[in-house]
Amino acid sequence: MTNFAEKSITRRGFLTKVGGGIAAASAAAAFAKSAGALEQLRVPDPPGRKLGWAIVGLGSLAINQILPAFAASEKSKVVALVSGHPDKANKLALRYGVNPKNIYNYENYDTIRDNPEVDVIYIVLPNSMHAEYTIRGVQAGKHVLCEKPMAVSVAECQQMIDAAAKANRKLMIAYRCRYEPFNQEMIRMARSQEIGPVRIIQTEVGFNIGDPSQWRCKKALAGGGSLMDIGIYGLNAARYISGEEPVEVNAMMFSTPGDPRFAEVEETINFQLRFPSGVLANGISSYGASPRSHFQAITPRGFFELQPANNYTGLRMYVNRGNISEEVMIEPVDHFAKEMDHMSGCVMENKTPLTPGEEGLRDLKIMTAIYQAAQSGATIKL
Amino acid sequence: MTNFAEKSITRRGFLTKVGGGIAAASAAAAFAKSAGALEQLRVPDPPGRKLGWAIVGLGSLAINQILPAFAASEKSKVVALVSGHPDKANKLALRYGVNPKNIYNYENYDTIRDNPEVDVIYIVLPNSMHAEYTIRGVQAGKHVLCEKPMAVSVAECQQMIDAAAKANRKLMIAYRCRYEPFNQEMIRMARSQEIGPVRIIQTEVGFNIGDPSQWRCKKALAGGGSLMDIGIYGLNAARYISGEEPVEVNAMMFSTPGDPRFAEVEETINFQLRFPSGVLANGISSYGASPRSHFQAITPRGFFELQPANNYTGLRMYVNRGNISEEVMIEPVDHFAKEMDHMSGCVMENKTPLTPGEEGLRDLKIMTAIYQAAQSGATIKL
Amino acid sequence: MTNFAEKSITRRGFLTKVGGGIAAASAAAAFAKSAGALEQLRVPDPPGRKLGWAIVGLGSLAINQILPAFAASEKSKVVALVSGHPDKANKLALRYGVNPKNIYNYENYDTIRDNPEVDVIYIVLPNSMHAEYTIRGVQAGKHVLCEKPMAVSVAECQQMIDAAAKANRKLMIAYRCRYEPFNQEMIRMARSQEIGPVRIIQTEVGFNIGDPSQWRCKKALAGGGSLMDIGIYGLNAARYISGEEPVEVNAMMFSTPGDPRFAEVEETINFQLRFPSGVLANGISSYGASPRSHFQAITPRGFFELQPANNYTGLRMYVNRGNISEEVMIEPVDHFAKEMDHMSGCVMENKTPLTPGEEGLRDLKIMTAIYQAAQSGATIKL
Amino acid sequence: MTNFAEKSITRRGFLTKVGGGIAAASAAAAFAKSAGALEQLRVPDPPGRKLGWAIVGLGSLAINQILPAFAASEKSKVVALVSGHPDKANKLALRYGVNPKNIYNYENYDTIRDNPEVDVIYIVLPNSMHAEYTIRGVQAGKHVLCEKPMAVSVAECQQMIDAAAKANRKLMIAYRCRYEPFNQEMIRMARSQEIGPVRIIQTEVGFNIGDPSQWRCKKALAGGGSLMDIGIYGLNAARYISGEEPVEVNAMMFSTPGDPRFAEVEETINFQLRFPSGVLANGISSYGASPRSHFQAITPRGFFELQPANNYTGLRMYVNRGNISEEVMIEPVDHFAKEMDHMSGCVMENKTPLTPGEEGLRDLKIMTAIYQAAQSGATIKL
Repeated sequence: MTNFAEKSITRRGFLTKVGGGIAAASAAAAFAKSAGALEQLRVPDPPGRKLGWAIVGLGSLAINQILPAFAASEKSKVVALVSGHPDKANKLALRYGVNPKNIYNYENYDTIRDNPEVDVIYIVLPNSMHAEYTIRGVQAGKHVLCEKPMAVSVAECQQMIDAAAKANRKLMIAYRCRYEPFNQEMIRMARSQEIGPVRIIQTEVGFNIGDPSQWRCKKALAGGGSLMDIGIYGLNAARYISGEEPVEVNAMMFSTPGDPRFAEVEETINFQLRFPSGVLANGISSYGASPRSHFQAITPRGFFELQPANNYTGLRMYVNRGNISEEVMIEPVDHFAKEMDHMSGCVMENKTPLTPGEEGLRDLKIMTAIYQAAQSGATIKL
Repeated sequence: MTNFAEKSITRRGFLTKVGGGIAAASAAAAFAKSAGALEQLRVPDPPGRKLGWAIVGLGSLAINQILPAFAASEKSKVVALVSGHPDKANKLALRYGVNPKNIYNYENYDTIRDNPEVDVIYIVLPNSMHAEYTIRGVQAGKHVLCEKPMAVSVAECQQMIDAAAKANRKLMIAYRCRYEPFNQEMIRMARSQEIGPVRIIQTEVGFNIGDPSQWRCKKALAGGGSLMDIGIYGLNAARYISGEEPVEVNAMMFSTPGDPRFAEVEETINFQLRFPSGVLANGISSYGASPRSHFQAITPRGFFELQPANNYTGLRMYVNRGNISEEVMIEPVDHFAKEMDHMSGCVMENKTPLTPGEEGLRDLKIMTAIYQAAQSGATIKL
Repeated sequence: MTNFAEKSITRRGFLTKVGGGIAAASAAAAFAKSAGALEQLRVPDPPGRKLGWAIVGLGSLAINQILPAFAASEKSKVVALVSGHPDKANKLALRYGVNPKNIYNYENYDTIRDNPEVDVIYIVLPNSMHAEYTIRGVQAGKHVLCEKPMAVSVAECQQMIDAAAKANRKLMIAYRCRYEPFNQEMIRMARSQEIGPVRIIQTEVGFNIGDPSQWRCKKALAGGGSLMDIGIYGLNAARYISGEEPVEVNAMMFSTPGDPRFAEVEETINFQLRFPSGVLANGISSYGASPRSHFQAITPRGFFELQPANNYTGLRMYVNRGNISEEVMIEPVDHFAKEMDHMSGCVMENKTPLTPGEEGLRDLKIMTAIYQAAQSGATIKL
Repeated sequence: MTNFAEKSITRRGFLTKVGGGIAAASAAAAFAKSAGALEQLRVPDPPGRKLGWAIVGLGSLAINQILPAFAASEKSKVVALVSGHPDKANKLALRYGVNPKNIYNYENYDTIRDNPEVDVIYIVLPNSMHAEYTIRGVQAGKHVLCEKPMAVSVAECQQMIDAAAKANRKLMIAYRCRYEPFNQEMIRMARSQEIGPVRIIQTEVGFNIGDPSQWRCKKALAGGGSLMDIGIYGLNAARYISGEEPVEVNAMMFSTPGDPRFAEVEETINFQLRFPSGVLANGISSYGASPRSHFQAITPRGFFELQPANNYTGLRMYVNRGNISEEVMIEPVDHFAKEMDHMSGCVMENKTPLTPGEEGLRDLKIMTAIYQAAQSGATIKL
């Protein structure tokens, strides 16, 4: 059974074993490992200090993913909620053991500065509210983890970075995929050139969006359409897989005329990126089609890929070495727990997060260029 | 993303939607669902009462699977530990917030009767110790969940059942797969005859066992070899997939001569079962080979299967309808949390568990017949 | 594209390259190979001498598989037809360029001895007619390739062998899978112990048989049910994968009461085999269920398998090495062309075929034991 | 076994059955079909008239694919060879039964007009020679099937079309994929909108090219790089899957500096297409990377795809319907035989081929625009 000898096994160790082809993290073989490991089993350390988190915005993501993830966190606990719906906040506070006095609304949000239990604020609001609530958060003396996209304009991103710097607080953008082992293994494969240098990257993300009245379909709230919300995963992946910053972008955009979902924001926007080394990327981003969730890196000798690539669970990785195709088995983790613990760790050890505000800013700059390329019909140089 | 609109979605609802081919629990489509579900999102109920659990035996399974599973439990919390290693127990108590006064050893185990915090005892000891600690547990007035195999003999199983009955306590055997949704969907497919009646069942489980000095290789502790430990999963699956009790068994057994791992217990034991309706099953159970973990039901029109079938995580289900083969996507759960919550629920509501002592007894009877068939070279009738 | 630089590439060479992980016979990479091979392309040799073949029995197999296969044969051409239906024979003769004077019926079949164009006779009749037409064939001075099962009894097999020996003619049984590269690669993997020694073999073959009036459902014509017709593939595979002869068999049999298809012959018969080295096999054979067509060999380190395993086209091979699972790409061939050319080659070079009459006899002996085991409920020793 | 009741089963009928979910052309179930079909088996018609073909250019493709394909042709036979290497031509003539008097070289090629045995000429030369030899062919009174790309310029294509029209001969371009059933099923799925309208198309083709001295790396012979040779498959697929002609193209191109293979022709060229209905396509074409061979059509409800998509054999098709993914089993055919027989049929029945010269011309126009877009960094309108 996929009984990794201990759940806190380091990724490095695990992947080394996979790479060496010796050990056996597979379903089939893991019972053996489990059995053989009995004598050497390592008792997990007692839990260390946990920072207190406030969740700002109690929508689907907060309720279904983020709040449950604290159960799997090592360094993070939820201690406060910020919401415009007191009923919902109260009910969730009860469920997750949040002290009712730590429930805030958008008006008294700034008084969170007086709450020493709160170390970190996690902004889970519609895109257009990210800048304001991040800035108010750091000004309240709290560290901030902000959902992606960082904001709806380059200017806002810069203001957020500046505000965090001025307040001497950490600012991290919630690029969840950077904190889970499948995407990390994609990066390792790329850097190690295990099956040769990456030449082409391809990303496909999208879904057939539902209710036209939701905030994702409102320009004022979302800042843009599929690219801002889901295409950003592919864009970010092309950057972290290549390890480079794009220098040119092309794009084509289409929205079905008359479809109320796309009255304000774009349906599909497909883009091309050129990286300095010559790596080229093709990306698909859509609110009107249902591609597989897919990140793929192609080399002279084959390719490696995730599919699904950016789901919350169930990621799968495959490596094609020309004549054989392998599935790489990696023990899954709770993405949100890992992400939040990274932030808590950076705060505790005074380190810069892997995905700071500057990372979010870069994506905003490139997305702005992609929109520009689609509208102008010209390659935009960055 | 595999963002089920709420994690507590009922299996029934989910599967109905899958069956109807309408909704979209898939990786590819789930973003849409998540988005569309925003308005109807349901805030989870506050946690209800949780029963207090004592874990008896702090080996690999307890440390790596059971203790971490309490984080995902709704009705169960760990409040006591029973171990022969005080250091290990103390460290784990610290990690999981167990009061140090609630740490017991095998000598003072019976005094647990005086601890009102403990409602349920989970026996995670080597097989030969199951009977004694279960009986002492129910005699201490506690409900007992006991790992499989229930015990090392039919007689012991009966004594355990009798002891629990006399003490008026619940006794459940930890047939984990019965409490997770992939195996439950196998049962649903079988009962519904969705692709026709099941005619043949095939199960393959096993692994290449390591250190010969471990308790699994000692007859006195394990009671038997691969069949008792891993083959029992396939046997139990053949029973719950068919929904019948076998009436005849055949078997062939082999242990590599001179292999120290198999000096006392059998390496491979393959069996055949006949069920009253005519369903036939073939099973593989091995400590010396690494089959896929696989349960398969074959009908006149195709087959449905799990592979891996009994791992702790990562189960996958496929349905073959003659000319097309589908993968069925089901949101995974923590098997141990579900299992423990079933037991807590049965205690709270005074219900009989789905897998009571009688279920464990039945497998012991059949395993005894399988060993007999292998040794005698004759079909054993049950 | 799967453009093997030359279609006559030897299997050995191909597999060496696969094994070495260097070359690239894969779909993905083969274009490169094809391109790179341009300069060294080898022009195929002119066709050598072809022996003349007579096809006896113009049913589905002859019409849909065997006659078309001559187009891909190197050493075999069809020159005569034997059938009870002159219309069908005439039409097929026209299509395949057979001289009308070379059409025979079952009465004048023996006069084929006077036809010097005919070197080899291929018996494609219902099972119970194999012995008679094989014996008449060799007595007519022709070499004989006979479909499997060789005959309906051990005694008949021996008579066929004796008749061929007396007539000094070659006798080969049409174990088609032995002549195609996927099954050959299974044998190579087993012998080389590339992922360790084979410990367990599992075979599943079967289909949901249709019209009860067909000869396969008549004991007098078929000699038995699923085992004789389709289960024999799995039995034979267990023998060639293990490379050993079984010493013990168990079996369980079931036929749905009242099903007219199984009034005379068995529906399902599952068997177990023990080989001298300790390898154990489990087999499924059914006329009432639709398993995947599957041959699997399990070792301490993983498993390798074909699925489908015995179809005429579309075979696929997978190797599981514990933590990774690979698909092995092998250029397919026309099984029947390879099989017939093997026979023609043996005749031209006076060699014993890989699957002589003795091979067919062995399977009949084992199948007889399997039936006996199923009926007696006892392990039968061979 | 994949024993389609008769090999000449119509695609339509087969696919209907697949679509209806009733019958069973699968590996698993086909034995049943074969068995059940015994009584109704249809004897194939005698071969009809076959047109005589001359193969011009005896390189890898001619030797390994085209010449062997005549064995599977119904309406085409090889009767002449045109080559600059008499030894090779003689050897091949011997193998394929071509009369030595029907061997031509590039000098006396035009005298083929006096050979009444030759009906159709198949041009299998480097790209830059297509125009000349096609024009000389039609001027010699023969019908011409010309390999893709049709020529190296739009002007040449027009000249070829004009020459054929003037000579009143058929001109067909060898878009092989249009004549094989997997790509045909992609088109059917798109037109039927079975899982909704196609919104996005994605194609990936390429390989890591070998020897820099081959004609594919020479601008003068190949006319271009990866796009002309392999990317054209993806471009053509985007057109036949959408059923539309693109109106805008974007592109990005890269060739590794200093790599001798790309001194004259491009390595990678990725393109974007916009179709009038709003369908967008992303394409990858590379001589320096090894993507899977992949054509994919994405709809609001899922996607359908081929992978490999354009290999000579071994194509596979998958349909994703949101929550389930199916493999579609289709009996493979010899692509070249089907393609040549289509041409022979058009000649015999005086019909326009499915892929006439005009089809080749259209791809040349679009490829010219793709190169222009890559060089100018601007969207090119068509």
